Amino acid sequence: MRFPDLRQTRFNLITVGYEILDGKILNTNSKWLAEKITSMGGRVDRMITVGDDVDEIVWAIRESIKSGVDWIITSGGLGPTYDDLTLKGVAKALRRKLVLNRKALEMLKRRYEKLYEKGVIPSPELTPQRIKMAMLPRGGKPLKNDVGSAPGVLLRYGKTRIVCLPGVPSELKSIFENEVEPLIKKSLKHVFRVERWFEVKGIAESTLAPKLEILRLRNPNVYIKSHPRMEEGKSVIRLQLISAANKLKTAEKRIEDVAESLKKIVMEFEGELSSIKGDET
Amino acid sequence: MRFPDLRQTRFNLITVGYEILDGKILNTNSKWLAEKITSMGGRVDRMITVGDDVDEIVWAIRESIKSGVDWIITSGGLGPTYDDLTLKGVAKALRRKLVLNRKALEMLKRRYEKLYEKGVIPSPELTPQRIKMAMLPRGGKPLKNDVGSAPGVLLRYGKTRIVCLPGVPSELKSIFENEVEPLIKKSLKHVFRVERWFEVKGIAESTLAPKLEILRLRNPNVYIKSHPRMEEGKSVIRLQLISAANKLKTAEKRIEDVAESLKKIVMEFEGELSSIKGDET
Repeated sequence: MRFPDLRQTRFNLITVGYEILDGKILNTNSKWLAEKITSMGGRVDRMITVGDDVDEIVWAIRESIKSGVDWIITSGGLGPTYDDLTLKGVAKALRRKLVLNRKALEMLKRRYEKLYEKGVIPSPELTPQRIKMAMLPRGGKPLKNDVGSAPGVLLRYGKTRIVCLPGVPSELKSIFENEVEPLIKKSLKHVFRVERWFEVKGIAESTLAPKLEILRLRNPNVYIKSHPRMEEGKSVIRLQLISAANKLKTAEKRIEDVAESLKKIVMEFEGELSSIKGDET
Repeated sequence: MRFPDLRQTRFNLITVGYEILDGKILNTNSKWLAEKITSMGGRVDRMITVGDDVDEIVWAIRESIKSGVDWIITSGGLGPTYDDLTLKGVAKALRRKLVLNRKALEMLKRRYEKLYEKGVIPSPELTPQRIKMAMLPRGGKPLKNDVGSAPGVLLRYGKTRIVCLPGVPSELKSIFENEVEPLIKKSLKHVFRVERWFEVKGIAESTLAPKLEILRLRNPNVYIKSHPRMEEGKSVIRLQLISAANKLKTAEKRIEDVAESLKKIVMEFEGELSSIKGDET
């Protein structure tokens, strides 16, 4: 369970691209976005990766809307080539037309003029492929891309906000931080989150497990997750405690109570308990 | 499009765990599995990550079955703790009961006796938490785990095979290579896959794009993907060509034809074309 008493702002992350599905590249975009969102106090409910395929994108968007999330963030598939299909998929999912957006076209025009002046491209002409990046689902608002060409896109569909970002990590990060993060912060329900990590040595996970279950039942507002591992043939259990509440003091108090009980349990089994920084691996 | 003429064996990968959704860890398991599957000639259609939540697991399994894939591979959520819920979710999705599997119980018994003899755990007793890992959806077959405790699980549901693997990467890899890979190889429709990479310098992607579109229309059986990037302010386009056919010669011939046309296009625009090893980044 995950903070059952809190109505957090919920997100789905959708990645579009065969290069992920073929195992060519790691989906670092989703991890980066999830870390950002979690640290802001939001919560990611699903990550979905589909191929460069309109019907698959439609499926991912519609399932996300159906699940009632507040935000959908897509990455990938915004470029000029024929297999950049994200906006086509989003438009189809929302039953909206793709229409030329003047503001997006202006952004592209400036971008290609700059590249032309620098001698990077032979012509600043807005070819059909370049104009394609300014064709947004009706109602879409372009988000400025300071690093690459394709603008991001922001849409509203009922209570759900849909953000489309490019797949190139530097572009995704730039648009997210400049254009999306401020909007998310404004939309967040106010939640304080406290996290602490402990390491337990000398007790097997299956010995500790029933005790942890009782601890969880008694502390439904604290997320207690055990991460077992073996180190030199010995059982080491990392325990992650997360608590979130609308007041910081409440969140802290809840986690302190669990930490106290934990100390007693570990003492009972003659194990070792130490506070650690977190799970970096 | 992705080999439109081929009926490849199709996979969905489902990852279970809040630690991924919270952005704590990268989903390296999905990349590893996708790379393995792709190199065998299979194809991954979707990657889905959900939390440690029965209804979310049910959703992911049912959507995958609905989409008609041949294989579903889940990772994570097989351990002894209360929030390891994958088998509960799979059972619910298939409307099957969780039943004690004698073979799985035997595996666990041997495992804990060994750990006890080594002095890792204070008792080899099969506690309810340990027995939980032997409760498989009816019809499930345990897959031997040589590295950790929780056995993997293999299930059939109509034409779909479902494999559940632990989330710890070393355990996932060991079970996959020893127990799953041989089964997948037997189930694969025979497909030869040829891949080549080129680098184009001196031509902007949006200039090249319309030419590539014509190339794609003329060569529907070759996957042509452009990966644009900037290097020192200059446009560099990596082109990935993939062809697959039931005969190796056919796959090779198709890719050679496209490479020839590509040379002509690049010459026309006075760019530079070079053959490269592949996209490692």
